[in-house]
Amino acid sequence: MSAVLEDSLIERLVKGFGRSPLQLNGLQESDSELLRLPNGAVVLAVTTDGIVEEIEQGLYDYPYQIGWMTITVNASDLAASAADPIGVLVNQTFPHAADEGLISEVQHGIRDACDCYSLALLGGDTNFSSVMQMSGVALGVVSADYALTRCGCQPGDRLFASAPLGLGSSYALTKLGRGYQDAGRGVSFLPRARLAESHLMRGYVSACMDTSDGMVATIDQLSRLNHVGFDVELPVREFLHPHAKLIAEEAGIPPWMMLAGPHGEFELLFTVPQGLCAAFTHLAKSQRWNPIEIGTVAAGSGLRLNDARQWLEIDTPRVRDLFFQPSDDIALYLAELPRLAHPVDSAKALVR
Amino acid sequence: MSAVLEDSLIERLVKGFGRSPLQLNGLQESDSELLRLPNGAVVLAVTTDGIVEEIEQGLYDYPYQIGWMTITVNASDLAASAADPIGVLVNQTFPHAADEGLISEVQHGIRDACDCYSLALLGGDTNFSSVMQMSGVALGVVSADYALTRCGCQPGDRLFASAPLGLGSSYALTKLGRGYQDAGRGVSFLPRARLAESHLMRGYVSACMDTSDGMVATIDQLSRLNHVGFDVELPVREFLHPHAKLIAEEAGIPPWMMLAGPHGEFELLFTVPQGLCAAFTHLAKSQRWNPIEIGTVAAGSGLRLNDARQWLEIDTPRVRDLFFQPSDDIALYLAELPRLAHPVDSAKALVR
Repeated sequence: MSAVLEDSLIERLVKGFGRSPLQLNGLQESDSELLRLPNGAVVLAVTTDGIVEEIEQGLYDYPYQIGWMTITVNASDLAASAADPIGVLVNQTFPHAADEGLISEVQHGIRDACDCYSLALLGGDTNFSSVMQMSGVALGVVSADYALTRCGCQPGDRLFASAPLGLGSSYALTKLGRGYQDAGRGVSFLPRARLAESHLMRGYVSACMDTSDGMVATIDQLSRLNHVGFDVELPVREFLHPHAKLIAEEAGIPPWMMLAGPHGEFELLFTVPQGLCAAFTHLAKSQRWNPIEIGTVAAGSGLRLNDARQWLEIDTPRVRDLFFQPSDDIALYLAELPRLAHPVDSAKALVR
Repeated sequence: MSAVLEDSLIERLVKGFGRSPLQLNGLQESDSELLRLPNGAVVLAVTTDGIVEEIEQGLYDYPYQIGWMTITVNASDLAASAADPIGVLVNQTFPHAADEGLISEVQHGIRDACDCYSLALLGGDTNFSSVMQMSGVALGVVSADYALTRCGCQPGDRLFASAPLGLGSSYALTKLGRGYQDAGRGVSFLPRARLAESHLMRGYVSACMDTSDGMVATIDQLSRLNHVGFDVELPVREFLHPHAKLIAEEAGIPPWMMLAGPHGEFELLFTVPQGLCAAFTHLAKSQRWNPIEIGTVAAGSGLRLNDARQWLEIDTPRVRDLFFQPSDDIALYLAELPRLAHPVDSAKALVR
């Protein structure tokens, strides 16, 4: 597969750096960094993620949401590693003119998210600058036997989504796309990271990654790291979030495009070996969780989606690059995106 | 002691948050957050610190320095906990217009600092925004018996500085103070965090904190947390960094003011019980390290400095508040600062 721009940048950023002998995962192989601690079988999961563009572009635009998301983006990485939450550190940069109300609403969002995920506030750093930026660090622990990474799936494994997908894109479109605001109809975006659910995945799941960058980018990474492809047999409409379905219909956008935007919904995509699927699904349902079985890990590479009328092969590297190239023009992006899906013969798709 | 603005803000930020049962230190009690990990006697030290105002104000103004400092500010917090370094995560926000050269020079600074401190690069997050901001997360481990915090000193303990102090202030003055640029004479600011030295402190030191916010703020915190005062008997000139001494002389500024600025030099201030001083000093010297014995922990509160001609009682809370109040006018700050030092009767100072 061709390298994508974002991955090339990251590889350049880390070039020449030493790695820790304690670190279990390689570059890009895990949502959290996994460290085997001295004198213990316990693995530390640590991750850091910031909210910068999202604030600057107005995607997250009220203080409570900014606080909530600062914790959620990091909790979601812990979830993808199936780690037990310990706590977070928060790096806050407030605008110089921040008033009492702004600061306390941000803290309210942070506090509610910490409570929701059982994450203690461990510490942090507070700065003032011309622009508001937030980042967090989340820490968790998991026994070495159960730590999940993005690596480990095999052809034949089944692909699951923790819940319907596409809200990340449809929310972004109604927030930032000219002409789509009306379609927003007050949709809120306060996703809940799947930390609680991720416990149930232990022992069943072969690879896992969150959809923080959208489903297509997630599949692209899983595909590269595991040298496999993905056939998503369940028709896209059937696992699309209701809001994403609505926006796609009203705007006349092909539904799959709601899975392609770079702003995701913080669900989990994960794979389960065929023989464990029944037991896993039974366990999940017993806990009132209904993960959606959407497809199969295939030999080869790439992503094929079932658009109900036809099978589409998605050019996942170019989808990722399309957004990574700096441009604020969403209309241009939406015009270009359909060209990155190629109809494929369904018989061929199913037997590759 | 009266509360200072910065501490009040931090207390407000954490109000209502749960704490982790694993965390050993309370609020403000340690430069790194210390966590006793499940199933182990090992303590995890974790810290996060960002470079925001420093970049925005032009205090750190070339890419290599920005990279170096991103790691150093965090390594310094690990040093204050006497932790063995594990690694760092880096949260980078580059300007949209960042070119190849800028990015690779920042990485060069980060890499050299990581090498210097034996910190592996574990992971991170990369963003693009209108302004450049950097933050880091550092992780280390230390056995529970040897973890240092800001708490634990007693009246009678001796106060040490890891090296001469004041470069943080004098550098900031030549960088940002109108009329002081000439006095810079090409002084560079690439401080080395005292991680290597901090190993030697284990078993000897009763409390430790780095001077990232300058000596006066550090003493103010140590004083509050330990309910003690500090008598710095060594004349200020004798432990002032040569550059700070030069600037003070040329500008006719009282030398102690070079210890009062909010930009510090990332040295360590620490206390050693009287009975252990000889052994500690011997060990340090055997490793070619010459920490400076500058004073004594006293009963009571506050900071007294020996200005050679007289003893000065420094109003440390007001010194900290003076800078925390938003103002870009360094001249105003310098005019106000001398009023916060009060001459005291030397006999009284020594017997309180």
